[in-house]
Amino acid sequence: MPEIRQNFITKEWVIFAPERSKRPEEFKTKKERREIPSYSSTCPFCKGNEHLTPPELFSIKKDGNWIVRVVPNKFPALEMEGEKVRSLKGIKRSITGVGIHEVLIETPIHNLFIPFMDEKQILTVLETYKVRYLEAWKNPKVEMVLIFKNHGEGAGTSLEHPHSQLIGLPIIPTDIRQRLWDAMRYYDENGECIYCRNLEEEIRDGERVVLETKNFVVFIPYAACSPFHTWIFPKNHNCSFSDAKDEEMKEFAKVLKSVLLKFYKGLNDPDYNILIRSYPAGKGVEKFFHWYVSIVLRLTKSAGFELGSGMFINTSLPEKDAEFLRSIEI
Amino acid sequence: MPEIRQNFITKEWVIFAPERSKRPEEFKTKKERREIPSYSSTCPFCKGNEHLTPPELFSIKKDGNWIVRVVPNKFPALEMEGEKVRSLKGIKRSITGVGIHEVLIETPIHNLFIPFMDEKQILTVLETYKVRYLEAWKNPKVEMVLIFKNHGEGAGTSLEHPHSQLIGLPIIPTDIRQRLWDAMRYYDENGECIYCRNLEEEIRDGERVVLETKNFVVFIPYAACSPFHTWIFPKNHNCSFSDAKDEEMKEFAKVLKSVLLKFYKGLNDPDYNILIRSYPAGKGVEKFFHWYVSIVLRLTKSAGFELGSGMFINTSLPEKDAEFLRSIEI
Repeated sequence: MPEIRQNFITKEWVIFAPERSKRPEEFKTKKERREIPSYSSTCPFCKGNEHLTPPELFSIKKDGNWIVRVVPNKFPALEMEGEKVRSLKGIKRSITGVGIHEVLIETPIHNLFIPFMDEKQILTVLETYKVRYLEAWKNPKVEMVLIFKNHGEGAGTSLEHPHSQLIGLPIIPTDIRQRLWDAMRYYDENGECIYCRNLEEEIRDGERVVLETKNFVVFIPYAACSPFHTWIFPKNHNCSFSDAKDEEMKEFAKVLKSVLLKFYKGLNDPDYNILIRSYPAGKGVEKFFHWYVSIVLRLTKSAGFELGSGMFINTSLPEKDAEFLRSIEI
Repeated sequence: MPEIRQNFITKEWVIFAPERSKRPEEFKTKKERREIPSYSSTCPFCKGNEHLTPPELFSIKKDGNWIVRVVPNKFPALEMEGEKVRSLKGIKRSITGVGIHEVLIETPIHNLFIPFMDEKQILTVLETYKVRYLEAWKNPKVEMVLIFKNHGEGAGTSLEHPHSQLIGLPIIPTDIRQRLWDAMRYYDENGECIYCRNLEEEIRDGERVVLETKNFVVFIPYAACSPFHTWIFPKNHNCSFSDAKDEEMKEFAKVLKSVLLKFYKGLNDPDYNILIRSYPAGKGVEKFFHWYVSIVLRLTKSAGFELGSGMFINTSLPEKDAEFLRSIEI
């Protein structure tokens, strides 16, 4: 009998269909591993090709060479210059597309993906996230800042050189607003953070936990939308990513490497998106929201049912996915 | 300067990025047209292979042969048998996966896609939708019935033989509930159906309209999530698809054929999903909801930004898409 589980936080339903389900190892991607070179002459993110990007916004250097570099997106979804103007004409409601769209180049080396970086380099990337995140919030036009990473063609990358993106929006997306409302209402009803409660029960249950460190827990949520959908949760309650302490940042780097290495080895370098979910403010003290990281593996495709219902059909089981990932040695 | 438009109905924001935008003809799919045979010996939906499907639930016959046939899905997402049991254990909230999952085989002929059917056959398909829709609502376990169609691999089809699906869920999806709440609130505030208002303004504006008949309007909504996202709207206010009158059904068949033929010719047989959006009840008299059809073309891919924000970046403009589709002769 299939089971429909409800996400405790978003209240979204997900169908788990055992008839259609696969064993975790069947999700291994079929792609052949190509030899990716450490330098590409046409890649705008490689060392030596800096002239191919718009002028640098920020960088971290070591021995005179950049090791992480931030540039404006050459084909931005939003533009820095211009006024933020709202227009309301009947059903035609719009706002000018002002905002921020940056690319965070994670390494000068074309083929040095996160699972193979040393932890120090990963920490430098994460610290750059934080610097640019706080910088973006200084812009008065910005109401939401998103940091995300697309890995692999199936996850929407056009350039394979390791990079992340930051988008600063002049509005709060409807989905995000809904999540905030829901979390606020839970707090008002129960006097606790819904994310903290969720985390606590996932730790107690244990069967969906992939790994746990002093400050972080990695787990496949009980109502995961898709196979191997993974959450990295800080144990300390902070609503904003920018409030993570130095000790947490170091551990975050280590944990991120471990998880991505498990994916790489266990599922043959699958395509994925990494999202940092953080409260919409540079610094925050909100008791009802909790920052975390969501990793969405692109192993399945959505079809008419998903588009029409907003629900998902997961052909795997979180408990099995977690067990499989725990078993992958790194 | 990019523009961010808000969907008047769902309040969702969509970024229109002209820097990244393409001319409509650039969205033509690159796929090569294969010769698809009119019969395949391994296809469970072809005439003569009826033994390859579970036992028939319904069919419409002509001269003793079926022309439309409904069977249970062989790998159902939900199962008919069993009790509807809700379980609440802390964060673990679930319901048994009882429900309906049917396949509606649109024709005995393997390669007879809707744009090439005669209008009578399309009408038979749509009438079958209606019969099965009403039948599904008789099941007391069912709270939501969705009818949808996946065309092409990019839209999630595994079998190319023309078919649609019906899913009867034992719950109301969160997304659907949200749409109902929003429409209800608009009605309470304004004393009119938000969909009727939207339609009226789209007709008055005209620049996003693809075609208009006595009872239907086809348009690309002002804040379309993706290139060529198309809505087919009945002009008469009815909350449920099952309330469409015979005259409307006939016209619906004609309109659907025209739109899909325009896609086929103008965009080289793109992959798409068709969704019927209808009020969650067999028959309804709700003044705040309006049934319609949404066609989502799978021409672009979602990435980290879309997953993290719930927003979309549309690299085309609805006005240009509509102009292009109007220009395609059928």
